[in-house]
Amino acid sequence: MSLDDNWFTELDSSKGCAFSLHVETKLHEEQTPFQHIAIYKTTEFGNLMVLDDIIMLTERDNFIYHEMISHTVLFMHSKPRKVVIIGGGDCGTLLEVLKHPELEQVMQVEIDERVTRLSEQYFPQLCVCNDDPRAQFFFEDGIKWMANAPAQSIDVIIVDSTDPLGPGEGLFTADFYQDCCRVLTSDGFLIQQSESPLLHLPLLQSMHEAMREGGFKKTRSIQFPQCVYPSGWWTATLAGNNDLKPFREDDARNKSFQTRYYNAEIQKAGFVLPNFLAEALPH
Amino acid sequence: MSLDDNWFTELDSSKGCAFSLHVETKLHEEQTPFQHIAIYKTTEFGNLMVLDDIIMLTERDNFIYHEMISHTVLFMHSKPRKVVIIGGGDCGTLLEVLKHPELEQVMQVEIDERVTRLSEQYFPQLCVCNDDPRAQFFFEDGIKWMANAPAQSIDVIIVDSTDPLGPGEGLFTADFYQDCCRVLTSDGFLIQQSESPLLHLPLLQSMHEAMREGGFKKTRSIQFPQCVYPSGWWTATLAGNNDLKPFREDDARNKSFQTRYYNAEIQKAGFVLPNFLAEALPH
Repeated sequence: MSLDDNWFTELDSSKGCAFSLHVETKLHEEQTPFQHIAIYKTTEFGNLMVLDDIIMLTERDNFIYHEMISHTVLFMHSKPRKVVIIGGGDCGTLLEVLKHPELEQVMQVEIDERVTRLSEQYFPQLCVCNDDPRAQFFFEDGIKWMANAPAQSIDVIIVDSTDPLGPGEGLFTADFYQDCCRVLTSDGFLIQQSESPLLHLPLLQSMHEAMREGGFKKTRSIQFPQCVYPSGWWTATLAGNNDLKPFREDDARNKSFQTRYYNAEIQKAGFVLPNFLAEALPH
Repeated sequence: MSLDDNWFTELDSSKGCAFSLHVETKLHEEQTPFQHIAIYKTTEFGNLMVLDDIIMLTERDNFIYHEMISHTVLFMHSKPRKVVIIGGGDCGTLLEVLKHPELEQVMQVEIDERVTRLSEQYFPQLCVCNDDPRAQFFFEDGIKWMANAPAQSIDVIIVDSTDPLGPGEGLFTADFYQDCCRVLTSDGFLIQQSESPLLHLPLLQSMHEAMREGGFKKTRSIQFPQCVYPSGWWTATLAGNNDLKPFREDDARNKSFQTRYYNAEIQKAGFVLPNFLAEALPH
């Protein structure tokens, strides 16, 4: 079978695989100072955002990733008040984070303002809470922002970044994690998207090492499906100085908001690793 | 990006998505009375078997599916002795099933003998136990085999079939499940691959209905990643007349054999469904 021009293909030649979505039309395309952004209307996955030829999200399946990277860590913290999202320009993570009523301040630090503006236009359902008075937007480099942030000022850091290439690269280094460690309160946690367990295991291992080199005592990965990312299987990695598994189970069970993927049992299941991963990663 | 002739693409036009693997060479191709079989050497996923243009398995990631469809159900049965695999011609499920030392007889009923012969040639690591004296091979129609099998003669039925199109279609009907119900012992279980939770939810729902129409009192789906199948996320569905969650947890924890994906905690995590699935399926 071959695909005609009506398909957008994300080609991962070093991994020998590719994933394609059938598109009806290209809605927008631009080159920003940071990256190339394209937005398509697909036939079956709703709107699609592509950054530098890499699929960032579709309307159909982004809920899995956004719910897992938000609620897992927020229900781990005993009393989160201040959260910072590094990256996350599409506002899907912000939407989930703001569902937690106990939060007082949620800062989103996205290097490329155009990602957010285009999300407001083409993914409006992700941006419905952008006017929440607790939300603050910074359009600047997350690495510099973190370097300048006051010590022990943040309860939860969520790194919702692109792959470790281009603008996202510096977010996977021990230097960055050292700043995160300094900025987090003593009972704070960081969570970061950490690629595919099948395709990117060496990267996952080096993230754990860099997080520990940066000063975190504990690191642990969770897994979940993410259908439009390479291999359809994804991870996020947690870092902190306290145990990384306990969570406010009753609060998760009785949460005041709706989710489509996440629930308290899913939180526990996400931490269960298959043998080959458990053998390869600290936990 | 477009893909040249060095890529095999599985195109699912009704679902608007496609998955491609980079191939080095086509190792074999033939039309059997039942289907078209092609075998490729890929650059990153080992050998690849394709039936009627649908990816059946790769060397790299088949362990997830084969372990989940075998060990989950076998550790649920208190004392399995006789197992039948319907389909499963590549012998990957058979390999996992035969790891259970308590089994006395494992019958594999594959309609297309060529799938097994080609697997012996191109996926020899899946066929290393084909000479086990407990293994018996029937190359015939699984539906007819089940219709003629004695009542209450089998402890576990594993339906490791292709999609509900072509040779696999009749394996998703109430008539077939009625025969399975008759052939199973009263404490027996059936498990069957049941497609993607994201892409094939109506099919999954109709499978549950057909299983119950066929006479099973309980049905329940489990989920796991399967990277080369559409959406990278897959399910298997269990049917039986007893509770479908309890399992021999101590035996699973102390099993005498190696697995790469499966473990006792994974068994429990597989049963945890995200909200949208839990709302859509009986459990």
